[in-house]
Formats: sequence, structure tokens, C-alpha cells
Amino acid sequence: MKMLINVPETVVADALRGMAAAHPELTVDVERRVVVRRDAPVAGKVALVSGGGSGHEPLHAGFVGPGMLDAACPGEVFTSPVPDQMVRAAAAVDSGAGVLFVVKNYTGDVLNFEMAAELAEDEGVRIARVLVDDDVAVTDSLYTAGRRGTGATLFVEKIAGAATEEGAPLERVEAVARRVNERSRSFGVALGACTTPAKGSPTFDLPPGELELGVGIHGEPGRERRAMMTAREIADVAVEAVLDDLRPTGPVLALVNGMGGTPLLELYGFHAEVARVLGERGVPVARALVGNYVTSLDMAGCSVTLCEADEELLRLWDAPVRTAALRWGL
Amino acid sequence: MKMLINVPETVVADALRGMAAAHPELTVDVERRVVVRRDAPVAGKVALVSGGGSGHEPLHAGFVGPGMLDAACPGEVFTSPVPDQMVRAAAAVDSGAGVLFVVKNYTGDVLNFEMAAELAEDEGVRIARVLVDDDVAVTDSLYTAGRRGTGATLFVEKIAGAATEEGAPLERVEAVARRVNERSRSFGVALGACTTPAKGSPTFDLPPGELELGVGIHGEPGRERRAMMTAREIADVAVEAVLDDLRPTGPVLALVNGMGGTPLLELYGFHAEVARVLGERGVPVARALVGNYVTSLDMAGCSVTLCEADEELLRLWDAPVRTAALRWGL
Repeated sequence: MKMLINVPETVVADALRGMAAAHPELTVDVERRVVVRRDAPVAGKVALVSGGGSGHEPLHAGFVGPGMLDAACPGEVFTSPVPDQMVRAAAAVDSGAGVLFVVKNYTGDVLNFEMAAELAEDEGVRIARVLVDDDVAVTDSLYTAGRRGTGATLFVEKIAGAATEEGAPLERVEAVARRVNERSRSFGVALGACTTPAKGSPTFDLPPGELELGVGIHGEPGRERRAMMTAREIADVAVEAVLDDLRPTGPVLALVNGMGGTPLLELYGFHAEVARVLGERGVPVARALVGNYVTSLDMAGCSVTLCEADEELLRLWDAPVRTAALRWGL
Repeated sequence: MKMLINVPETVVADALRGMAAAHPELTVDVERRVVVRRDAPVAGKVALVSGGGSGHEPLHAGFVGPGMLDAACPGEVFTSPVPDQMVRAAAAVDSGAGVLFVVKNYTGDVLNFEMAAELAEDEGVRIARVLVDDDVAVTDSLYTAGRRGTGATLFVEKIAGAATEEGAPLERVEAVARRVNERSRSFGVALGACTTPAKGSPTFDLPPGELELGVGIHGEPGRERRAMMTAREIADVAVEAVLDDLRPTGPVLALVNGMGGTPLLELYGFHAEVARVLGERGVPVARALVGNYVTSLDMAGCSVTLCEADEELLRLWDAPVRTAALRWGL
């Protein structure tokens, strides 16, 4: 498998050097692997910190900036960051108002953020944590006890980030983040496997003519494999799976997310089918986002995330944001 | 080859239905294939119209909105739009101040925009045209006489769009667009081929262990094939090729563009190498953009575009923009 890299060992460091070069509004510690908005700590503001394995870009470093994350901690590809990164990030961004850790539900992430919270609190930083576990496909997967955290991470980080900018105290930011997660569900589909730089060959085997329904963002197994389906059929399965679990009674935020290897042309066509199913089920779409946001390297496929959004969540969603990957109003 | 589609025949129409669903700020004529900013025509403003074959998303429809294009005309995948689309687009967006067509240098696009210009002028719309031909890799390629139009299209559309918002008259917008093109050069590299929905198999054959230097955005042949290279080596070749032709004496805008199938993690790592070469050559980078903007479906690879930007061009680059794919300040 050909890759646009130097050697597999430096892929994450090289990407961080690139982020530093492209984004002077970020402070990038390439060696210690912490990406911080340059103006942090922002006086009086609660800080939002997240992180996780690399390979899901733009998540999380691409979401650092005013209106979203204060800092991100990228791990090796598909590998949890270590507590030291998170402690450093918390120290760099804490203004005294406290720090909320946004943690995707993978065992390594959960354990390491837990340890980091203890260490940071020992240093006098108030820490709260919110777990993202939106993927309805399976419970208890390859790296996870319970449901996996996937696309809803973007909603949690954007909306909680907006709450921090409004001056909400830590308990309130935590409650908003928790509410977003509780109201969000996702379902992913793989049409092709992904290839990590270290392995150099596909991380799982998906035969020609088959797709994986309910796949995780590291290629973890989903609900089942089936013969290849049309976009229309895939949308039926994915949206029904999300709605059956979420059962929204009001309008939703919709994310049609590419896994990395599927062209944007196809993602928009898929969104048309997602919008059709939602229309048939009587679910209004308040806002929609279509693109590659929570990826799995070069995996072909997509995921659907819906978040039932009340007026406060919509207002926070619409609030200005300025990051590498998500930006409006600033 | 598995794709997230219904049938190949409806791929473009399906994507346009998805754009309509996702972006209420756009008016999308799915049948006639014209995407227009909803508030067009804007009184007194020169209008900017572009278009080209589909498969390069977000180009062009993803760049429609305040501060950039007033309308886009998507053709079939890798196929020029027809004059009727362009005439309709011009009529929809002309406020009386005239319309500038931004045309990538491919024979079909050039001929059809030329015919559309004549037809629109017959209907009383003032039309100017600017040709984008930034690709230094080859002259006279598969679909092109002269140099191909690639990544600089984004710079031309953004900067000329900003000029239209400032109230510049048609001649001035045309001159700015021409200046951006004259000061821009690109070079692309393919690590893997792309697959069109209609063909269903790779459009060209790139053996394992080889890459194509100077590839076009439809997979047209470039300068040469070589054994696989590191990101560092590829950046050396690509940036040198651009600089040798551009010979900038001041700061540049830099676009590190993904062809569609290469992960963002790798694109940022590649940008680090591009920034290194520019540093070694003493070329300051005024602004950088890293991501998938002028794609070739699922092609693996990237391109580098540099635009030597004076203060006026930088000011217009920084001006607010609000489109599906490029947005800031609005």
C-alpha cells in the first residue's frame, strides 16, 4: 500500500509539524503531542480538552480553536494518547475555571483520561469528564465496553465549546455536553477497509461485493456483512438503526460523515437518501453537515449521526467557531 | 469497485439533491444542473460563474456563496457541462453588472463556455472570461491544449469573488482573476488511480510501487512514473517544479490539496515537507490551506499550488466567504 509519508514511525509527528506550519493560530508541541489554541488560557473561560488515536482527522486537532476545543491530544494511529499529554493540555488551557475532558468510549482513552484527571486535580486543576458513546451498532466491541464513541464527538465538542465561550461554568458545560451525547446516535458502514501506516496492509478483510453494516471507526466489526447495497438501501438501514434507538420527537442535527476514502460526490448523494428517510419518518432536519470529519484513514464508507437538538443546542451549534476544519462567523 | 451510489447514471443528480437538502442557502436546479446562491442576483454586483466536470468536489458547487461563486454548473463526471447550463446560470445571477466565467483549461470546457458567452451576450448579459491554466507538469495533455487548470481555480474563485463583493466592475474583476492565474502554478502526484462510477474500474493503471509525477485531475498522464518516493522526496520534486516556473519574489498562498483518497493525516505531513522546501528556497508562506478541495474522486495523491500574492490579493483572500466548503468571517 503506497502512502504519502516518510516512514510509519513519524507519521503523527510529521502531521503535527504540518499543522504548526499551516495554522499559526495554534500552538503545536510536536514532541509532546499537544495542540493548543494560541490564546489559551482564556481568562475566566472553562476549557475543553479532547484527544484520541490519530487517523480520524480532522478529529480532534482540526477542532481546536475559539468556539470549540481549547486543546487536543493526538495519540499514535488508532492508539490512545497517554495521560501525560492530557495533563499538559489541561495545565496549558486552564484559566482557573476548570477543564472538561471529552472522551470517546474506548477502553484505553477512558482509562488514560481517568488517570489524567486524577493527576491534573492533584495539580489543582478542576476536571470534569464526559463520555461519548453514540454508536448504536454494537455494545462491547473490539476496544470498547458499552457503545463506541464516533460522530457525536463533533456535536459534543462544537456545542460544549460554544457554551464555554458564553461563560458557562464547568458544571453547566458538562451538563450540556452530556445532553448532546445522550441525544445523539450514530451508525457506520464500511465499503472498504483502511490501512494503517504501521501495518501497511488493510486492517480487516472485506471481500469484493460485500459491505460491513455497523462498522467502527477503527474497522471494528459491526452488526453484519451483506452483499453490496445501493445508497438508498444503506440509508434505509443506517437511519432506521439510529432512529429506532434515538426516537426523536423534534428536529435533529444531521451529520453525514465520510470515513475518508469515499468521494464527496457520493457523500452528497448519500445525504439525499438520508434526508429522504428522515422526511418519510417525519423527522425535521434543522441543520446538516456533509463531509469527512470523523474518519478512519482511507476507509471507504460513511456514517450517519443524528442529534435531537432543542433551541439551546441549535443556538450553540450556530455560534461562531474558528478551527482548521469547522469554521463560521469568525 | 464498490461505491456509495444508487446507479451510475444518477450520481450527479443524486449529489445535487443532497446539496439542496444540506444547504438551504443555495438554489439547486437538479434537472438543469445549476447551483446558485439563493440571494442572487445581488444588486449592482458583478457575478462569478464557473463549472466543469463533476468528480472534483467540493469544486465548483461547494464554492457557491457570498464571497465566492454566484453559480456553478456541474457536468457529468469528468465531462464538461453544456452551454445551456452556463447560459441559465448567467441569466440567474446577472444583476446588470455583468458576469465573469471562470474556465479551467480543458477543451470541452473552453468551447462550451465560449458558446455560452455568445448566447448569453445575445440575451443582453455582459460576459467576460478568464482561463485557468496553472498546471506546470505538461503542456498539451489528454483533454487540453496548453497547460491544464487545477488547484489555482480555488484561488481565482475566492479572490475574484471577494473583488465582486467589494463592488469592483467587470473589467476589474476580470483583471484580478487573470492576475491570480498568472501568478499561480500547480503540480500534482498520483499514488493510485481513480474510479469513475460509469467505468467501475480504475481509469488508468498505476502499478504497485510506482507513482505518477505531474498527474492531471482526471488521471491524465504526467511527466513520468517513478518508483515510490517518500513525502519528503515528493515535496522536493513538486515544489521545485512549481517554483522553477513561478519564480516568486514575494510571499505565496499555498494550497496542499488532496486528490480525494489520501488521508488528511498524510496531507498535513506532506504540508510539513512543502513548508520545509519553501523555507529552504526562501519563499515566505503568507497563508496555507490543507485539505481536499480540487479532487479526482477517490484518487490517492495530492497537488501543490502556489500563488504569489501581493497585499491586494492577500486582502481579498482574507475577505469573508460563506460556501459549503470554504467559509470564514460569515
